[in-house]
Amino acid sequence: MAVLITGGAGFVAANLVQKFLDSGQVVIAVDNFSRGTKEIIAFALVHSNFHLIECDLSDYSSVVQDLDEIYAIYKISEVWHLAANSDIPAGVKDMDVDLRDTFMTTFNILKWMKSKSVRVIYFASSSAVYGDHGSDVLTENTGPLLPISNYGAMKLASEAQISAAAESFLLKAIIFRFPNVVGIPATHGVIFDFINKLMESPKKLFVLGDGSQFKSYLHVNELVEAMLLISTMNFDQKLQVFNVGPENEDGIHVKTIAEEVVRMVSPTASIEFGTGNKGWVGDIPKFKYSIDKIKKNGWSPSLNSYQTVLKAISEIREQFSK
Amino acid sequence: MAVLITGGAGFVAANLVQKFLDSGQVVIAVDNFSRGTKEIIAFALVHSNFHLIECDLSDYSSVVQDLDEIYAIYKISEVWHLAANSDIPAGVKDMDVDLRDTFMTTFNILKWMKSKSVRVIYFASSSAVYGDHGSDVLTENTGPLLPISNYGAMKLASEAQISAAAESFLLKAIIFRFPNVVGIPATHGVIFDFINKLMESPKKLFVLGDGSQFKSYLHVNELVEAMLLISTMNFDQKLQVFNVGPENEDGIHVKTIAEEVVRMVSPTASIEFGTGNKGWVGDIPKFKYSIDKIKKNGWSPSLNSYQTVLKAISEIREQFSK
Repeated sequence: MAVLITGGAGFVAANLVQKFLDSGQVVIAVDNFSRGTKEIIAFALVHSNFHLIECDLSDYSSVVQDLDEIYAIYKISEVWHLAANSDIPAGVKDMDVDLRDTFMTTFNILKWMKSKSVRVIYFASSSAVYGDHGSDVLTENTGPLLPISNYGAMKLASEAQISAAAESFLLKAIIFRFPNVVGIPATHGVIFDFINKLMESPKKLFVLGDGSQFKSYLHVNELVEAMLLISTMNFDQKLQVFNVGPENEDGIHVKTIAEEVVRMVSPTASIEFGTGNKGWVGDIPKFKYSIDKIKKNGWSPSLNSYQTVLKAISEIREQFSK
Repeated sequence: MAVLITGGAGFVAANLVQKFLDSGQVVIAVDNFSRGTKEIIAFALVHSNFHLIECDLSDYSSVVQDLDEIYAIYKISEVWHLAANSDIPAGVKDMDVDLRDTFMTTFNILKWMKSKSVRVIYFASSSAVYGDHGSDVLTENTGPLLPISNYGAMKLASEAQISAAAESFLLKAIIFRFPNVVGIPATHGVIFDFINKLMESPKKLFVLGDGSQFKSYLHVNELVEAMLLISTMNFDQKLQVFNVGPENEDGIHVKTIAEEVVRMVSPTASIEFGTGNKGWVGDIPKFKYSIDKIKKNGWSPSLNSYQTVLKAISEIREQFSK
């Protein structure tokens, strides 16, 4: 028996793979290496319980060929579907990016799961499915769901397809709606971008938007811990949705992140802000999460957004120095 | 200037086309004739303002070829996107049906609109996006949105993609969430199916499910009237969602529909019910709509679900007798 992790060479997956291998689990990781890299999961490649398959999940014929082959050797007990586009502006520019890398990977993995009667899925969704609700605190039941980026749209489309599959053939489907997740091995995101920019020009940090964006940040270690805890539980209904994040309404301004990155990475740099409360088309200027549901199920975050950001800056700074 | 209607040879479109032609509008109808037929819009084919294009909108290269050609002659001011799979069980059986006919048609028409800067879309969505909320009254802000059929999932995916497009390039996007819509020219739906069955075996009507399903019905004439009224209005926000249906919480049981069809079509037939409160996987056993929002905008239905069903039985009976 093995667990299948899609996007298995990505940032969150690398942390999840480590936990699974530590617990003696056989792990099949699938990645197309469009964003994931072998370097990210180098630690796992030497492990006998780890199998890495290069496969583009957006192409169903490849899915059938590659996954049927591994399925003949290992029965897959559950799928952790983390494969997705993670670059929101890239998806706004070219609609096909999120269609292909986020939605079609979901559609095809579900179709394949149906063909093999694999009936358990954990899905990495996003706060982006909510769209822009201003200062409203977002619970899992908040509506309407009107995403403002193709990234959020294709995450919502994926949720919808999983929801229908839960009615038709799945036994368990857990949708985790991630906030901003940071930590290492970092590949993208605001902290990574800021440090990257400062490495190139240490005297000035240019910030997209006016810095007033207010968002929730969670450390990847805490996210993985939360998901693994929830995955051990059984629920009355086959389909469950969980916000995962720091404490209710906790968040941090982009301005503060920029200031802390400068302080810790390049103290003499000046910060130049853009205009408007959005960093890019599809950026949500403000979101506040409720995590009451997951707390009732026994998980609580240990860090707030500010502490998380500080920890991640320190980690990513070290990652860059290697 | 012309309006473009996708799924233009379908049931709702036929009624919309008639209204547009009556008002002197140039209409471009696009259909792949998978469910729509030339017979349905025979009345329009003789009209000089009507142009019918056979095109499979799920294939983007066909979209570009066929729509660019007509766009060179007529500027398209707005798109009425009605193309979709309308057979829910077919989509449960084969996931590709709703992906192709509902979602990819939406994705591709948006992509094409973006390429030509066509910035107004009206979309035929569905109450199926809500999933099963039991006896709760559904408003446009109801969440969570967890559809239980691939049909509903791909309508929600389409809404999500339109929502993201509204943030990026659309000027006006109106999403109409249809209840059950009946009338002529009928091509599918419970009344059509019941009469069809009685034509084949006049002594017995077999009903899927126990008949306890409770749903809202709207006559297609009223639906088209509502959509055209809303389309003339301007709103503060580019994206608007409207439930369209009979009065709040009004509905009718499937058992009553079966009884009325038998009474009006084949009075000596006996009715045999199945079991369970769903007619098929993905059937919503009960839904109650709130139409407060569209009423505040000046539209009210004139018939309730029961009156609508009686009218439609009479019309569809006549359609069958031709």
